[in-house]
Amino acid sequence: MIYLTRRATFSAAHRLWSEHLTEAENYAIYDKCANPNGHGHNYALEVTVRGWPDKRTGMILNLTELKEAVENSVIKWVDHKHLNHDVPWLEGIIPTAEMLVIAFWLRVEAELPTGLLYEVKLHETENNIAIYRGEQRA
Amino acid sequence: MIYLTRRATFSAAHRLWSEHLTEAENYAIYDKCANPNGHGHNYALEVTVRGWPDKRTGMILNLTELKEAVENSVIKWVDHKHLNHDVPWLEGIIPTAEMLVIAFWLRVEAELPTGLLYEVKLHETENNIAIYRGEQRA
Amino acid sequence: MIYLTRRATFSAAHRLWSEHLTEAENYAIYDKCANPNGHGHNYALEVTVRGWPDKRTGMILNLTELKEAVENSVIKWVDHKHLNHDVPWLEGIIPTAEMLVIAFWLRVEAELPTGLLYEVKLHETENNIAIYRGEQRA
Amino acid sequence: MIYLTRRATFSAAHRLWSEHLTEAENYAIYDKCANPNGHGHNYALEVTVRGWPDKRTGMILNLTELKEAVENSVIKWVDHKHLNHDVPWLEGIIPTAEMLVIAFWLRVEAELPTGLLYEVKLHETENNIAIYRGEQRA
Amino acid sequence: MIYLTRRATFSAAHRLWSEHLTEAENYAIYDKCANPNGHGHNYALEVTVRGWPDKRTGMILNLTELKEAVENSVIKWVDHKHLNHDVPWLEGIIPTAEMLVIAFWLRVEAELPTGLLYEVKLHETENNIAIYRGEQRA
Amino acid sequence: MIYLTRRATFSAAHRLWSEHLTEAENYAIYDKCANPNGHGHNYALEVTVRGWPDKRTGMILNLTELKEAVENSVIKWVDHKHLNHDVPWLEGIIPTAEMLVIAFWLRVEAELPTGLLYEVKLHETENNIAIYRGEQRA
Repeated sequence: MIYLTRRATFSAAHRLWSEHLTEAENYAIYDKCANPNGHGHNYALEVTVRGWPDKRTGMILNLTELKEAVENSVIKWVDHKHLNHDVPWLEGIIPTAEMLVIAFWLRVEAELPTGLLYEVKLHETENNIAIYRGEQRA
Repeated sequence: MIYLTRRATFSAAHRLWSEHLTEAENYAIYDKCANPNGHGHNYALEVTVRGWPDKRTGMILNLTELKEAVENSVIKWVDHKHLNHDVPWLEGIIPTAEMLVIAFWLRVEAELPTGLLYEVKLHETENNIAIYRGEQRA
Repeated sequence: MIYLTRRATFSAAHRLWSEHLTEAENYAIYDKCANPNGHGHNYALEVTVRGWPDKRTGMILNLTELKEAVENSVIKWVDHKHLNHDVPWLEGIIPTAEMLVIAFWLRVEAELPTGLLYEVKLHETENNIAIYRGEQRA
Repeated sequence: MIYLTRRATFSAAHRLWSEHLTEAENYAIYDKCANPNGHGHNYALEVTVRGWPDKRTGMILNLTELKEAVENSVIKWVDHKHLNHDVPWLEGIIPTAEMLVIAFWLRVEAELPTGLLYEVKLHETENNIAIYRGEQRA
Repeated sequence: MIYLTRRATFSAAHRLWSEHLTEAENYAIYDKCANPNGHGHNYALEVTVRGWPDKRTGMILNLTELKEAVENSVIKWVDHKHLNHDVPWLEGIIPTAEMLVIAFWLRVEAELPTGLLYEVKLHETENNIAIYRGEQRA
Repeated sequence: MIYLTRRATFSAAHRLWSEHLTEAENYAIYDKCANPNGHGHNYALEVTVRGWPDKRTGMILNLTELKEAVENSVIKWVDHKHLNHDVPWLEGIIPTAEMLVIAFWLRVEAELPTGLLYEVKLHETENNIAIYRGEQRA
């Protein structure tokens, strides 16, 4: 099996805040990430598919198609947006890196042939990274 | 003369919007950067001083002092903040990369010995960069 | 088990074109990558071995040996070359990132002690990456 | 004065070969860069303009306009091309990094308001960089 | 399962030298890395935990806690130190990248809830990387 | 005029300590950089020459010659060394980034045709950078 990755970037604002916590708990847990007006990041998203290259084309999936699938299902919805307010399919989701990779996985997976998606990796900063491979809770 | 640079990073939200323009003009000029809820970036700020190293220490300025000057005058005010709403000394300033480097220059310059500051460089994304060297309009 | 990676870079030209497709199909699938005179990349190749460090040396494999194995089996053949015309062991292979990692795996594996090679990763650009771990089609 | 930079990337093939030199001289000077079938790079181009921000917009030049000027005058002509064969305005030019920055300066300068362009910087690899600021030979 | 990574950097000196080898063998194996006065690196350490996000917080583990665990168990002991002389828990260990990731794994694992740590990755230079995932020798 | 830059890297140990200061002053000024056993860095050195390309070759200076000049005058002396103990021409010099760029300038300048060298830039870490352009104290 070959793994093929396409990287895309987007710039967005977000605020970490949970409806399940008191105001004091929110500030204790999220600290400066709970700033009411939000803050933001240049996110880098890496989407990886897995398969065996077609003999006629030498490709698992055309990188142009992969690029467009990521663009249409995720990037155009989140780029230059506030993740807490502007994205219908993120409503009710706390936009930590962990929760975003799950949401992005679901969006990208629906655009691709079944079984092709292998991994979604999100760089929030050069120091914070989250990965989801579709593994379900036991 | 030797040039010595210290790099620091911060994550912030902003919105490009001008009080001097109509709503239609704002959207025409700033496009997706005018999104009402804002968006954000991981900014990288490089501050450069210029001088001749002290013979006893081999230093122009102690890098720890430079780091603290940048931290105190800029980073702690803007990190995890919304640049349009949370920073008193940015009030009334359109937070383009061009306007931010001027504002940051004034803040850092006031913390350093006279004549030492040479350049303030701001990376908004990996593709957008602004520099100010204190040059005045003729 | 410990995983140890050595990175090397090379600059090469290539053209995506398949003998199994018509001219129209080639341009439809490969688009600008099918330009007759070719285009090129600064490739970065990461080769990973897997094993347990020798107690006397603290090493799985001497990094100098790994560097030379990669240099001799791959880099010196492809650096500053045209991948479609200048590399005998790539003849008949469509030089997509997917096909190249398989070809590079076979070359590097033959230079190393059996069972040591774990992964070959190829960065074609900062946005396109392929990985092969020797997994066979079922 | 403020300096504003926009970065863009392109992938191209090239061959270093001079009509003013014998075959032996060409191989002595350009060595592996003289490979007849060419080789290639992921180039990164940084274009810098210099000016004073407009008070109403906070901008020297709209970054979108700068991006389009670079795209139209350079990127769309050279991306996924062979620089020796496919670019009419590079005909007769030896495509070293030094010669390319001069050619790119002339192309970009013609797209921008007079006096705005400050610098064209080209990264051929992570180790080779050329810069032109429009300075003429004395 | 979600994978969450925190990256930290440190600068240290080290020397590769084994008590189990003769002087001649040491120089044959470690070559320039055996220089008696040592040499050094800017290391980048990536620590990855694996788990399922808490519904109330959207987090596997608070990134601030992960940062502090890495800081307290590893970074403050090794940053601006000589790895052969200044770190009690590295005594008797040959500081290759392979041996360091095992030592760092043991240190970080003891600071985290059982079963949470997934991977320790160490970049010695931009070309040399080692990974440990806690896998034991069979 | 065209500016042409070649980048090279080296790994070295150093200790900041001045013979002109008391032990207490040394620790007050250099803090953790004064650790008796030293620490280390992956340095990146960028050397820039300035000139006008030769019409016959399209080059200011052959990049291979520039690479060799930097290798012979600096890199082979400092790579995998301790800068306080192993480099004769650094004897008596406090190895701050500021002092190193002056010493490296003198070494590289002596290898190149008169007037060609424009700038020496040294990255000590991703956050600390020094530059020297040969400007003398007034």
